[in-house]
Amino acid sequence: MPGTLDAYLEEHANVARVLLERLCRQPSVTAQNFGTAEMGTLMEELLRETGFSTQRLCVEGAPAAIYGELRGRSPYTILLYNHYDVQPAEPLDLWLSPPFEPTERDGKLYARGISDNKGEIATRLAAIRALLAVEGELPITLRWVIEGEEEVGSPHFSAIAEKYSELLRADGCLWEGAHLEDDGRPALGLGAKGILYVQLDVQGTGVDAHSGNATILPSAAWRLVQALASLRSPEGHVLIPGFYEDVKAPTEAQLAALATQVDLEDKLKQTFQIEQFVDGLSGIALRKRAAFTPTCNIAGLVSGYTGEGSKTILPARASAKIDFRLVPDQDPRDILQKMRAHLDAHGYTDIHLTTFVSAEPVVTAVEEPFVKKIKDIAEAFTGKPAAVTPLGGGSLPLLEGLKKYVGVPGLSVPGNPTYWGSGAHSPNEHIRLSDLAPAVAYNCHMFQALGKQA
Amino acid sequence: MPGTLDAYLEEHANVARVLLERLCRQPSVTAQNFGTAEMGTLMEELLRETGFSTQRLCVEGAPAAIYGELRGRSPYTILLYNHYDVQPAEPLDLWLSPPFEPTERDGKLYARGISDNKGEIATRLAAIRALLAVEGELPITLRWVIEGEEEVGSPHFSAIAEKYSELLRADGCLWEGAHLEDDGRPALGLGAKGILYVQLDVQGTGVDAHSGNATILPSAAWRLVQALASLRSPEGHVLIPGFYEDVKAPTEAQLAALATQVDLEDKLKQTFQIEQFVDGLSGIALRKRAAFTPTCNIAGLVSGYTGEGSKTILPARASAKIDFRLVPDQDPRDILQKMRAHLDAHGYTDIHLTTFVSAEPVVTAVEEPFVKKIKDIAEAFTGKPAAVTPLGGGSLPLLEGLKKYVGVPGLSVPGNPTYWGSGAHSPNEHIRLSDLAPAVAYNCHMFQALGKQA
Repeated sequence: MPGTLDAYLEEHANVARVLLERLCRQPSVTAQNFGTAEMGTLMEELLRETGFSTQRLCVEGAPAAIYGELRGRSPYTILLYNHYDVQPAEPLDLWLSPPFEPTERDGKLYARGISDNKGEIATRLAAIRALLAVEGELPITLRWVIEGEEEVGSPHFSAIAEKYSELLRADGCLWEGAHLEDDGRPALGLGAKGILYVQLDVQGTGVDAHSGNATILPSAAWRLVQALASLRSPEGHVLIPGFYEDVKAPTEAQLAALATQVDLEDKLKQTFQIEQFVDGLSGIALRKRAAFTPTCNIAGLVSGYTGEGSKTILPARASAKIDFRLVPDQDPRDILQKMRAHLDAHGYTDIHLTTFVSAEPVVTAVEEPFVKKIKDIAEAFTGKPAAVTPLGGGSLPLLEGLKKYVGVPGLSVPGNPTYWGSGAHSPNEHIRLSDLAPAVAYNCHMFQALGKQA
Repeated sequence: MPGTLDAYLEEHANVARVLLERLCRQPSVTAQNFGTAEMGTLMEELLRETGFSTQRLCVEGAPAAIYGELRGRSPYTILLYNHYDVQPAEPLDLWLSPPFEPTERDGKLYARGISDNKGEIATRLAAIRALLAVEGELPITLRWVIEGEEEVGSPHFSAIAEKYSELLRADGCLWEGAHLEDDGRPALGLGAKGILYVQLDVQGTGVDAHSGNATILPSAAWRLVQALASLRSPEGHVLIPGFYEDVKAPTEAQLAALATQVDLEDKLKQTFQIEQFVDGLSGIALRKRAAFTPTCNIAGLVSGYTGEGSKTILPARASAKIDFRLVPDQDPRDILQKMRAHLDAHGYTDIHLTTFVSAEPVVTAVEEPFVKKIKDIAEAFTGKPAAVTPLGGGSLPLLEGLKKYVGVPGLSVPGNPTYWGSGAHSPNEHIRLSDLAPAVAYNCHMFQALGKQA
């Protein structure tokens, strides 16, 4: 039977790519209301085509999350999570090919969202189709929720999880995101940081002024710069009182897991064209910093004239976008209050804050039985020890609702055809075409193995 | 004879407006290479039509400055300075009528450059034409230089002044810019601040990164913010060592002149929609701050994602545009060196500096005989005490070359049909049509009075 499946996969090797190109040709930038509705329709269509009974999970103000259920031999139920929206493609001028026209170059396929996370949707779909074709039915029962707001911080996913909690119940959840490392080791991700994404707006004058007036007029840009500088030391320490108060020390098991991670230092240095990481860190110290440290990052900054050459103005307005990544047990609501209090205490009561994303950190314990089961399957399939990331650098705001209203344990597993250099959220996002087949095979195997253990 | 002139001016009241509309319909945005050459041709045509013998003053890389000479009864020679270029019209969406179609609304005429400084070119032309029509010749000799690069910082005017210094010699120079105040008092401007316009560029990573990596990657945006914050205290004091070293204390005569200035506080507050000026200043203290304090202004700031909503990136690059306004005897070259040394001393050796504009402050002493002569004429004509600005907030980079290679004393005099609310450099730049006739009359009177004294 495995032989049959392997032969089928080889014969239908193009399925995942065809699905993927179909997914990537449809823009779905929810932040810009660009193609999201059409993408939802396409997503539902693809689930139905595959054999799922589908449903639109609707709450006010959100694009529908697409839900599908496909009963298998065993009632053992896995919830799959993905999202059909993508990041904005800007800056467009840095793309070597149009972001919504999947384009092959040197064995890679380029498109916005191809790595994050349409590639995984395509390989999961292809794997399910292959199992159905070869075995007639799935070994386990699958429930799949694919939302349309992940890249804007899943603002309605908690409401969806609350309203449709019955539909989402399962024995375990496979989040989006992990992949097979270049050395063949399976990567597992056990958690995501919390996030607080805030915009700071400063209004100085009502209109831009000739900068000859800078002697006597308030400057929005300077005020913003000074307020920002008060938030964080040049060394990276966040200066908001109480910011680190609720940071929980990592467990021994979490610290031990760091040693299992694949060494990506050279690849990261190459990708980001840097000589060294902050503070010259490397090895376990670097991984510990990456996993267990909260951040205060400037994602955007704008004021006044930003074109070529010079324009002598004192700008009326200035804005910054800040994202904090939070670790257990920091609470984004609490951090927002502390930030407001800090700004007020420094006299910046006029700085207006707008929150775009707010989500708690969520982590699954290394010792959780579902984690052990998935890890065993991964290691048996690859014949290699798993690379476990106890807490990833990114955030999955949806996990907060999933934890609160559904309570299903989860993790990220290999099956996303992405790699360290895919450039998620960046121009020229891509996957290596050679990663498609292993991802499909891995998904098939995982579903089969879960069926055997059920 | 004055009666005859007044009657002529009344009869030909429309001349200035017709000339002005002709000037404003021709775009001349040198920064965008938009219409500059055509404008130079039109400018030369208008001088010739008026009776000037003209010449193009050419140096490599610059649009030609237009030069005209018109000999009068007396060899007493005045050099007029104006510029035929204008600021970019952007942001276009804020204009209520097209910037290069002069449009009348509520007694005002709107167009880019109408206040700065095509209005003054038109009223000077109209005045000269009137004097020639009524008196047959000018009472004094006029030399007029009209350059095409003032709004980009007159980068070639020093070279022009050096090459053509003989043509520019005169007994005094009347710069562009001043006007009759609302209470009828004549405004005189005796100097302009120096300027150093620098762009700071920081490169952190080679490409934008997912902000989940902010734990371990260098941040260009934070580095820029911290570097900027090191330049200036929240109270506005510039922290570059030696920045204030060469600042010369104002003379008693300059300080006394501040008391003659018209009170524009309410109008400025209204224009810029502010409750109060910096540090709650008012009166003489405010004027002193405006006149004699150098500034370090942020004219532009940009990094990462500046669109709607959120994008979670760590931006690869960050840039700021800073303009310093300098007072005597600060030297822009020296300030640039000090800024570089300051950044280096703080570890910001990687921050790249690009200089766009650099010009020395130039000021004419209150006691200068030419100033006294012009002031007496202004006060006699208006019957009111002059409002003297010993050092204006803006910069006139051309003055550096004029001072160095020609050495002619100068000042700004009434004759520009502009007012406090004209919005130079802003959208909806305009003049009040009722200011045209007084400006023409003032120019006529001034030339006549200079002829009598010659």
